[in-house]
Amino acid sequence: MAVYTEVNDVALLNFLEDYDIGDVISYQGIAEGAENSNFLLQTTHGHFILTLYEKRVDPADIPFFLSLMSHLAARGIKCPLPVKGVDGESLHTLENRPAAIITFLEGSWPRHITSKHCLEVGRAMANMHDASASFKGTRSNSLSIQGWRALSDSLSNTADSIAVGLKDEIEIELSLLEREWPQTLPSGVIHADLFPDNVFFLGDRCSGLIDFYFACSDFLAYDIAVCLNAWCFELDGTMNVTKAEQLLLGYESVRPLIDDEKLALPVLTRGSAMRFLLTRLFDWINVPAGTLVKTKDPAEYLQKLRFHQEFSSIGNYGLS
Amino acid sequence: MAVYTEVNDVALLNFLEDYDIGDVISYQGIAEGAENSNFLLQTTHGHFILTLYEKRVDPADIPFFLSLMSHLAARGIKCPLPVKGVDGESLHTLENRPAAIITFLEGSWPRHITSKHCLEVGRAMANMHDASASFKGTRSNSLSIQGWRALSDSLSNTADSIAVGLKDEIEIELSLLEREWPQTLPSGVIHADLFPDNVFFLGDRCSGLIDFYFACSDFLAYDIAVCLNAWCFELDGTMNVTKAEQLLLGYESVRPLIDDEKLALPVLTRGSAMRFLLTRLFDWINVPAGTLVKTKDPAEYLQKLRFHQEFSSIGNYGLS
Repeated sequence: MAVYTEVNDVALLNFLEDYDIGDVISYQGIAEGAENSNFLLQTTHGHFILTLYEKRVDPADIPFFLSLMSHLAARGIKCPLPVKGVDGESLHTLENRPAAIITFLEGSWPRHITSKHCLEVGRAMANMHDASASFKGTRSNSLSIQGWRALSDSLSNTADSIAVGLKDEIEIELSLLEREWPQTLPSGVIHADLFPDNVFFLGDRCSGLIDFYFACSDFLAYDIAVCLNAWCFELDGTMNVTKAEQLLLGYESVRPLIDDEKLALPVLTRGSAMRFLLTRLFDWINVPAGTLVKTKDPAEYLQKLRFHQEFSSIGNYGLS
Repeated sequence: MAVYTEVNDVALLNFLEDYDIGDVISYQGIAEGAENSNFLLQTTHGHFILTLYEKRVDPADIPFFLSLMSHLAARGIKCPLPVKGVDGESLHTLENRPAAIITFLEGSWPRHITSKHCLEVGRAMANMHDASASFKGTRSNSLSIQGWRALSDSLSNTADSIAVGLKDEIEIELSLLEREWPQTLPSGVIHADLFPDNVFFLGDRCSGLIDFYFACSDFLAYDIAVCLNAWCFELDGTMNVTKAEQLLLGYESVRPLIDDEKLALPVLTRGSAMRFLLTRLFDWINVPAGTLVKTKDPAEYLQKLRFHQEFSSIGNYGLS
């Protein structure tokens, strides 16, 4: 839920003089997305999203994100297309922040996840991986296994203040993940944050993917691992095998997994649970009072991690 | 900045079966409005606002607000029109909350206030007062002078924790306001919260008024007093006489003030400053940690109150 920066209407009009997208009819802050300030902008030419990049996004990364979206959109992936200004550039400045306008995607993210959604997101993710294969840009994943120990160290003893023994539990798991993490797997540019609120649907059909601001170069199967955690768990903390199966079925209908990827899925999924546990712990502790960010509960991902520790097998995903 | 209640997509589809407004294309939480949860809803028929009324709105008052908007819209006032369901009712239930759909108004609220905006809001407010004269509903203003002392008492000593001596200062001012508050003035249903974020513009022209959820029966001139405080102050804490003059010029171009109203404006404006000082102090102290509401600074209205105490004269508003 985020509007960190208020946009002055006069500043907006000046900003829009650099674009050829018609006259403003309305603009309203959107109460979604946790990292940046987003406005729904309606002009005489249509609907757009105006994004002001806030301090959690490295300005040096923004051209990577925007050119990735342009690359994917040009290859038929339904995702926001950055709108170029009259100067040919899609990145400008508004209210002293890097800012861009992207096209508006129809659809809404699903609040109640069904197996059909899982099938669709699997297929959409695989199509995205196919399309990103020809993308030249790279960006290392600072939130992959190399970054987790540093993140864990920065938490110091605060993990224990949330659950007694959590610090040790994290240490033991990190050691296991470091030992068992795959060395080589098919790699490319992945979304890395394909949670339900980043996938739009119109009825049962996926209408697009949004929010590429964690996109990075990593194992393609790690993207699947993120989705298995984000889409296939029930509120009681158990994984729904049918949903996992459908997600992988959708994915493999476009891009079949190789055996090494299947074998690696359990450790990748444990790792992905660790990644979101650590970042949520970090946010839980570090979000300053008074900011308008809804911190997500780290306990959800601790529960998922423990589930994987107990039941880690590719059979859980309907694979054999 | 508000979405207090997440709306499940399945629940939304069920809810919309009671309306004849087409199929959902998208819905997104809006990061504006402090009292209720608001969503911008796009359907195959157009744009709408979906509002879920949260606990600060008394459910018993909602029919008053909705019928007022219908009454005003039918008389040519640009304001949201409640959309009736197929059952003929505009108030339904969603996610266990009273909920309504209203039409979407084009335009945006002005972040940078000019004299032209003040002229326009004065005129729009007077047109609204003219149109509300034939409205039969009434609702007492719980945040008018009768309510201020109770609000002040509930603050106890916390006012002093914000500024030393503030508790006494409020007491003295309340006594003065109670002595000097007018007994009779032209009355009717007023908006009572016509701040810039509740007035939309397209370019220089007012395109509509929104957020009637403080509307109540009170002196018409009290609505003007609220606007003088909300629209005509500069950041340095002084009133801009040109803006005040334009606001009153706009108002009187539609509905000339009687002498008693002009004479009462200084005390009404002091009273309005007191009202927002008290409610902001209350919110400052009472908003629970972790809620996503941006509390507004009480100091702004303390400064305005002190300005009026020092320079209270109708000459400040360009009147003579």
